Amino acid sequence: MSDGAADGDRSPLAARPDKTPKTARGRRTLRALLDAAAGEFGDRGFHEAAISRITARAGVSIGSFYTYFDSKEEVFTALVRDLSDRVGEVVGPAVAGERDGLSAERAGQRRYLEFVRHHKEIYRIIDEAEFVDPASYRAHYTGTAARIAARLEASAARGEISAGSAEVRAWALMGMNVFLGLRYGVWGGAEDLDAVTGVAGDLISHGLAPRSPSER
Amino acid sequence: MSDGAADGDRSPLAARPDKTPKTARGRRTLRALLDAAAGEFGDRGFHEAAISRITARAGVSIGSFYTYFDSKEEVFTALVRDLSDRVGEVVGPAVAGERDGLSAERAGQRRYLEFVRHHKEIYRIIDEAEFVDPASYRAHYTGTAARIAARLEASAARGEISAGSAEVRAWALMGMNVFLGLRYGVWGGAEDLDAVTGVAGDLISHGLAPRSPSER
Repeated sequence: MSDGAADGDRSPLAARPDKTPKTARGRRTLRALLDAAAGEFGDRGFHEAAISRITARAGVSIGSFYTYFDSKEEVFTALVRDLSDRVGEVVGPAVAGERDGLSAERAGQRRYLEFVRHHKEIYRIIDEAEFVDPASYRAHYTGTAARIAARLEASAARGEISAGSAEVRAWALMGMNVFLGLRYGVWGGAEDLDAVTGVAGDLISHGLAPRSPSER
Repeated sequence: MSDGAADGDRSPLAARPDKTPKTARGRRTLRALLDAAAGEFGDRGFHEAAISRITARAGVSIGSFYTYFDSKEEVFTALVRDLSDRVGEVVGPAVAGERDGLSAERAGQRRYLEFVRHHKEIYRIIDEAEFVDPASYRAHYTGTAARIAARLEASAARGEISAGSAEVRAWALMGMNVFLGLRYGVWGGAEDLDAVTGVAGDLISHGLAPRSPSER
């Protein structure tokens, strides 16, 4: 990840609780390993990726790798969970700063697309998890959908959006964001994100807005 | 594909124009090979799939395989194009039978989700194309988005939906449908599709409906 250094304060999760680093230095090492793993798996894919290149990218010894992970599979699993958490951490503050549920979903979409433009490797890694680590793939999407659904339920309870299954809507919004991210983040990059999120945000706003009595 | 026999009348496309079958019997053989390939790649994935098992599933000789394809890579590429065409052929009539653009997108979504429930293998095959055959992966989504965008442009020209970038909306709707298909088609199966498409369809209808002057 190009801005991995900016995440130095996060407490990265090890593959197993008994491998959680106990010192600030250990947390920095684990963070460096996960960021290096994102670069390595993102560039070469799981099968071509090598532990020796992950440690070289991270600037740590092979021994340090095995302090936190037993295998390439284990660091991949930890990385998918790390990326999944990171998406939540990036979108969360953008959403929390908005005045209502509709603005929040629009702001979350915008922040997600900006994030994808700078972290295109996320798509290859998450998509490869479907084949390399299906449980993590599923956990990423069910976890992300659950976060969105919780926001929508709270918004509906406040009367900021119309009534309707939060789960179905969460999967719909997540799919919309993932594919807009693929088209305008991973494959594209020159398109004006204001224009993209203006159109897609209107679809969300009108799609979820409270209904007038005549529309129900 | 479990209902491959029902497609006996389609003219399947060979990997190369010079390999296009010239007889009805040849078309049936090619169709059987593509349906068998869908089963084999869907069950075992690209790397574990074997040409000998594709021909055994199809009930044809190895020689027949090489009449139409030079390699496992070539049949995979032909299959992804075949599945992509098939999605269009399945959704097309559902969309065409509707009275306006909004009903058409709702009907297309419903038909797509029903189709996915009976053809779960499509997801694994298309998703694996990202790694095995990236050009086909991209062609599938850009082609599908182009079909949706063309419908939306026509609907907007008739005043049945509000104005807005057909491309952005097409990627948004496609992503919505793909993820609802993953959740309620591939992973689920017990959920009431009427309930799912009721909620998701309302999101589409309200999201795209013509705006009253005060909403513009």
